[in-house]
Amino acid sequence: MARDPLAERTVRRLTPAGATVVQDRLVVEEPLEIRLGDEPVAVVMRTPGDDIALAVGFLFSEGILNDPDQVLSVAYCTDVEAEAQGNIVRVLAEGADREAFEAARRDVYASSSCGLCGKTTLDAVRLLAPPVTPISLSAAVVAGIPDALRAGQSLFDATGGLHAAGLFTRDGAARLIREDVGRHNACDKILGSFALREEWPLGGHVLGLSGRASFEMVQKAAMAGIPAIVAVSAPSSLAVDYAAEAGMTLVGFAREGSMNVYCGAVG
Amino acid sequence: MARDPLAERTVRRLTPAGATVVQDRLVVEEPLEIRLGDEPVAVVMRTPGDDIALAVGFLFSEGILNDPDQVLSVAYCTDVEAEAQGNIVRVLAEGADREAFEAARRDVYASSSCGLCGKTTLDAVRLLAPPVTPISLSAAVVAGIPDALRAGQSLFDATGGLHAAGLFTRDGAARLIREDVGRHNACDKILGSFALREEWPLGGHVLGLSGRASFEMVQKAAMAGIPAIVAVSAPSSLAVDYAAEAGMTLVGFAREGSMNVYCGAVG
Repeated sequence: MARDPLAERTVRRLTPAGATVVQDRLVVEEPLEIRLGDEPVAVVMRTPGDDIALAVGFLFSEGILNDPDQVLSVAYCTDVEAEAQGNIVRVLAEGADREAFEAARRDVYASSSCGLCGKTTLDAVRLLAPPVTPISLSAAVVAGIPDALRAGQSLFDATGGLHAAGLFTRDGAARLIREDVGRHNACDKILGSFALREEWPLGGHVLGLSGRASFEMVQKAAMAGIPAIVAVSAPSSLAVDYAAEAGMTLVGFAREGSMNVYCGAVG
Repeated sequence: MARDPLAERTVRRLTPAGATVVQDRLVVEEPLEIRLGDEPVAVVMRTPGDDIALAVGFLFSEGILNDPDQVLSVAYCTDVEAEAQGNIVRVLAEGADREAFEAARRDVYASSSCGLCGKTTLDAVRLLAPPVTPISLSAAVVAGIPDALRAGQSLFDATGGLHAAGLFTRDGAARLIREDVGRHNACDKILGSFALREEWPLGGHVLGLSGRASFEMVQKAAMAGIPAIVAVSAPSSLAVDYAAEAGMTLVGFAREGSMNVYCGAVG
């Protein structure tokens, strides 16, 4: 019943020695809805696997449950459409803390608008985001982005503890680099700066990321009309799927002149 | 008006050559409340700096605003208590998308129960978490945790794209290691597994983290009664402050036999 935590995607691997097409394994990112009885508590973006434990652990770490004896049963919901199979877990428990439940429910409905499976998620987001105009990038420009990003990380130099996001022109010039403990905040700081300058949307630009490319980061780029993302680390399956559907360019593992092109034109 | 993005803390640095006491610079993590007019939209845990841009960028990336002309003014709220100064930004705008506003409000109230500044946050959480019984750890045990964690990361081996969390005994034996695109999920998977085994709370254990130690991770450990955290990367200021107040041990930069002890007994 549990869904696969790994997904394969065809990727173009570019290195200084040339280009190859390889099958790359990606970590799967999908929403899990956690229900307490018949009430949804939260939808979390997770890697499938140990979903039963995740649902229970969430309830304990949010303070909704605090004693194992409260748990009566935990199982995947089976009376749902095929697409959501394995993405909804129902916990039956007694004596749940209602205050903590309501707080968590308001709280962690963090991805609730995303729905219950990758497909629904993509549909929900695509409705909101403006159309993106695809661009093509040179491999040299992409290869230069990680170093440019790193050069702009003054807080990281001091602490070793931050994410960075940067907006680059299609020629690789850094326009703005921001750091934050939260990668989504670093991205929002950039989007907000350009919105405040009345430069919006940001077509023709590239978003550079110091870490991984999650679904959320691709979504933010799409909302800003940014057609290309270059990440130093791995993308998730959902990030790749969404970028591909939106006509965006997504590059991962951009390191030392090499890169994986998951979708879009780089060459 | 903007708050400092860096904070200094006294830290014990342990290396194979011996122990020293040094001043370490940490990235600050604090809540920012974003208001649209007089209505709170979200509280995000962020690094102070560019807060005005962050607030505006958040509204654009959530689809609440979509045209720079909608923004009438943006400023820190000044009519708030001293502690919250610089942690609340008010955006005045016209024509906001009410549907997106309501969705984001339900959504991203992710840290809303945390209040508006580090102090309030700590108070709010401390009420919930059970008391932690401090433990002391040997440096050799701490030094072994990163490798043990890495050895348990089978999905990372395949994809290079996941966070890991692990529960260890105070003698350094790995009891369970889990991976996920979200570090909070990896932690919740562990907590849930032990709750389901009716082994709860988890006093006397150590939580190992493959990445950074954020406030949220320390909070989860505290909720489970776990008295010690060993992270491979940097902690945030708020993570250190909370761990210290709760009597927990927090170690960061645990790499190649060296480590920074931010609080608690390691030696």
